[in-house]
Amino acid sequence: MKLTVTKDNLVSAIKRVVNAVSSKITLPALSNILVESEGDSMILTASDLELSIEARVPALVFEAGATTLPAKKFMQIANGLPNGDVTIETTDDEQSTLSCQKAYFKIHGLAAENFQKPEEVQEEWKLVLPVQDLVKNLIKVSYAKSMDEDGRRYLNGVLLSVRGDVLTIAATDGRRLALVEKPLEAGTAVDGDIILPAKASVELTRSLDSVGEVTIRVSQSTIAFETADVVLTSKLIEGTYPNYRQVIPKTFAKNVAIPRAAFSEALARVSMVVSDSSTSVRLSLGENTLTISANSNEVGESSEPVEIEYTDEPFEISFNPQFVSEPLKYLDCEQLIMQFSDDLSPVALTGDEGFLYIIMPMRG
Amino acid sequence: MKLTVTKDNLVSAIKRVVNAVSSKITLPALSNILVESEGDSMILTASDLELSIEARVPALVFEAGATTLPAKKFMQIANGLPNGDVTIETTDDEQSTLSCQKAYFKIHGLAAENFQKPEEVQEEWKLVLPVQDLVKNLIKVSYAKSMDEDGRRYLNGVLLSVRGDVLTIAATDGRRLALVEKPLEAGTAVDGDIILPAKASVELTRSLDSVGEVTIRVSQSTIAFETADVVLTSKLIEGTYPNYRQVIPKTFAKNVAIPRAAFSEALARVSMVVSDSSTSVRLSLGENTLTISANSNEVGESSEPVEIEYTDEPFEISFNPQFVSEPLKYLDCEQLIMQFSDDLSPVALTGDEGFLYIIMPMRG
Repeated sequence: MKLTVTKDNLVSAIKRVVNAVSSKITLPALSNILVESEGDSMILTASDLELSIEARVPALVFEAGATTLPAKKFMQIANGLPNGDVTIETTDDEQSTLSCQKAYFKIHGLAAENFQKPEEVQEEWKLVLPVQDLVKNLIKVSYAKSMDEDGRRYLNGVLLSVRGDVLTIAATDGRRLALVEKPLEAGTAVDGDIILPAKASVELTRSLDSVGEVTIRVSQSTIAFETADVVLTSKLIEGTYPNYRQVIPKTFAKNVAIPRAAFSEALARVSMVVSDSSTSVRLSLGENTLTISANSNEVGESSEPVEIEYTDEPFEISFNPQFVSEPLKYLDCEQLIMQFSDDLSPVALTGDEGFLYIIMPMRG
Repeated sequence: MKLTVTKDNLVSAIKRVVNAVSSKITLPALSNILVESEGDSMILTASDLELSIEARVPALVFEAGATTLPAKKFMQIANGLPNGDVTIETTDDEQSTLSCQKAYFKIHGLAAENFQKPEEVQEEWKLVLPVQDLVKNLIKVSYAKSMDEDGRRYLNGVLLSVRGDVLTIAATDGRRLALVEKPLEAGTAVDGDIILPAKASVELTRSLDSVGEVTIRVSQSTIAFETADVVLTSKLIEGTYPNYRQVIPKTFAKNVAIPRAAFSEALARVSMVVSDSSTSVRLSLGENTLTISANSNEVGESSEPVEIEYTDEPFEISFNPQFVSEPLKYLDCEQLIMQFSDDLSPVALTGDEGFLYIIMPMRG
């Protein structure tokens, strides 16, 4: 193989795929990145057997071929190259030379045959949507998935559910639920639920092209996300996602609008006095004021008012501050709507179109 | 105590002192920062008993007094405050309220009496010089000190030596030596050697005011560095610094000028192929070219030429790449001068005024 790519394209392609490499895998070839020529492109692929990411960049291909190069060193070297064209040339004994201006490297690789590429997805259904609709909405919900490695494995994933012409992305750890509903183009006419592993969900938000459309192809056990220059393939988490809709109250007694940015900043400040032994913040609704307060024996106490429009009777409710602050970071809305009934029943936060967050209060 | 400071001044003073706090100290008050009023100033002090840093900022003092506040939380809270004036008020039971705009905190502190301030320096000699002369030159040499915690303790420090009207700052780990000689104002007329602990040397480069003069006052076992707003006091390392001058060759057979920036970049690239089992880079002088090369069984090989003026006979020498690259980062000179005799004798690097670096070659 012999090809030339720009340094910037090389670095951007490596960055897109490299997180798929896992230090837990002991197959030597999977510590490497697969480098292939195809037409006028260089294609890089990295995989941990669960997740594979493939990135394509334009290249001048002088001689078709393939090899694999050690991921960490390849990235370090590519990053350190001067700006300019990088020529990669591979000999029969899997040595690859990288040259760029006066810099010269000869790196030990492994034969491409040793690299286990992901299986082709036997498409059962597919979906096409703007890539940002997928990425932005994944970011809005995926933090709510369970981080408990020893619990129910399907809660460690993110649900993608298509019903009629609506895509729902949801995540829950049993104490809070985040979901976004997104109308699809009419006539999508597929029904399907898949549970996406956490690593795939994170890498989707980093690796995909940022514009254009993504085609999602689903088989029994595998999913592929394809944009113009990237293909991310992941095994799916087996199991049935819990019926999260049953935790959403049908009605709420009251609601109040809260300025998102001011609330988020004040909440972050007040939460600083929370300690391991005292992990709740209190929200107190009074006349045209939401007061956030917290205290702990170790640190002390804090409080801060946020101006709102509220003239109903006083109300107090307590939360884990992390659980209230996380969704605020990823939303775009100016006003957050908090819906509630009493201080022990689930509370809803809404704001961005299609977004719903359900959170259980703590005993104050 | 009751006083008001701007948020920016509060944060900058905390940042200056906070690194003196050590997690290894079990005295509760030394996990705290001492907060005192003095005239129209607030003074913060942090200490690990070896090193103390004191920073002064302007304040509106309504009621004189002192307390201590937990360092980490104090910094986190100060950083998170909105911009504006911060009022700190301490009650008799060592609770301090911090209020800034609508944000309000009440933090548990400890009485100032529990905080062990550094002893007064019983001045034996002193020195006054521009603060940047001290800071820049400390940066140029201090990386060469020994990192070996179990070795000769005085090599873990940095030597400040005054002889007549010259200040020498030097550091060595036994395999390389870095020093800077700085002429002092005529009539300084002191002779003295002190060995500054590593932590003090690092904090000096971070904490002192960046302009003006620094007064250095030295006693038998303690040193104090005073700028307009900061006082850094440190215990000294006991012992006699080795006679480093004896490792400096009297003469060298040859010398060559090398463009520092180009050399530094190429060296960083070539060094990427070095591995744990193969830790040297080779410098080869040929006609008007310095070629840097390295190889390892694990990664592969690399080489890169740097243009120089050289017409003498070819010469090869090998070094630990870290030992060659470190001084390059901190120098200002465009051209580095390398002086050498043969491939097994010490090599000198010079460039910036007063700077000298001696490095032992490796067997190639």
